[in-house]
Amino acid sequence: MISFKKISHDDISQMEKVTRLKLINGLSGFKGANLIGTINRNGIENLAVFNSVVHIGSNPPFMGFIMRPLTVARHTYENIKETGWYTINHINKDMYRQAHQTSGNYKRDISEFDISGLHTTHSDTCSAPFVEESRIRIGMKFEEEHPIEANGTMLIVGSVEEVWLSKDYIEGDGYLDIEKAGSVAISGLDGYYEAQRLDKLSYVRVDPSKARRAD
Amino acid sequence: MISFKKISHDDISQMEKVTRLKLINGLSGFKGANLIGTINRNGIENLAVFNSVVHIGSNPPFMGFIMRPLTVARHTYENIKETGWYTINHINKDMYRQAHQTSGNYKRDISEFDISGLHTTHSDTCSAPFVEESRIRIGMKFEEEHPIEANGTMLIVGSVEEVWLSKDYIEGDGYLDIEKAGSVAISGLDGYYEAQRLDKLSYVRVDPSKARRAD
Repeated sequence: MISFKKISHDDISQMEKVTRLKLINGLSGFKGANLIGTINRNGIENLAVFNSVVHIGSNPPFMGFIMRPLTVARHTYENIKETGWYTINHINKDMYRQAHQTSGNYKRDISEFDISGLHTTHSDTCSAPFVEESRIRIGMKFEEEHPIEANGTMLIVGSVEEVWLSKDYIEGDGYLDIEKAGSVAISGLDGYYEAQRLDKLSYVRVDPSKARRAD
Repeated sequence: MISFKKISHDDISQMEKVTRLKLINGLSGFKGANLIGTINRNGIENLAVFNSVVHIGSNPPFMGFIMRPLTVARHTYENIKETGWYTINHINKDMYRQAHQTSGNYKRDISEFDISGLHTTHSDTCSAPFVEESRIRIGMKFEEEHPIEANGTMLIVGSVEEVWLSKDYIEGDGYLDIEKAGSVAISGLDGYYEAQRLDKLSYVRVDPSKARRAD
């Protein structure tokens, strides 16, 4: 028997800052662990962990992520706006500790590739660097941005221009087996998880008497 | 040695619809598995799986999620706009099959609580129904919406008004142990995963000579 406790909006306001940060960051559930790679016009590369990558659409293919407020320098944002390109790279079990090192606040002339020991790899079309150690790498073109009034964060939406991966991760029906690729999940700010598939459920077909008409 | 293959934007456009849907939905990595509960002004309740819940901020606490295009009826959206309230409920290992049933397209006068066999529970302050079988339940107030021009989806942002959970899930530093709560992750549209913590890494402190000034 679980004893449920209510934590109100006021309780949250009165929490100590770090306690609140850790608790609230856990509420959204498991999140993808991704590295976003960019380059500025002077050729300085940047790499940063993001746990807010979200699916926007498949046809055409779009993905989004949330940027923290721009009240301090955000190299990822500045580089995306300068060049129009960025990469999303799945973090896997073999390099999540190195990947996490990129979450520090480094000077702009320092590349987090050097800090973390991760390596760059490039494609002919995407100007932003990919992460060689990542097994699922996505080349993205900036599409639109939406400032969130509530707190100054921003939704960045981009178009999937190219995907680099092994065919072995793609099942017969198109399903991408990210467990096979070793991809990890994040909870909160810094909890890293491996995942095992419980089930692949099928599309829910509704009894016609209960179904909504396609209107 | 992994043999990487490039899938271009054109390759994606030419894929068969369901194959593309499954592949592109897997690119964002692991996602939280949540049920969003709402009620309309006539008292009809609605419950639907969302795998796009995202952290927006902790002080004040905000969360977001992506709504599919409004070209067909979206009961969750309509109910949120009618009442201002909704709930986010973590899906756990003991009820993910029931939760998945809510992803079918049902008529508006049918409650997915009845379809799935999940039960409602209520609080004094939040008018939307919570899911009794969920172990982490969040009462949300609508804050803002951002239509995404690229494909007509929408980012919905809300304020965390109350959280219902067991104190046992909260570690000493505030970290929320969602694995202990049995919360599951989704990959793609319908792959359900359990997760085991690999590590809880610490905040990255940067050598002062490499640190960005707080400006």
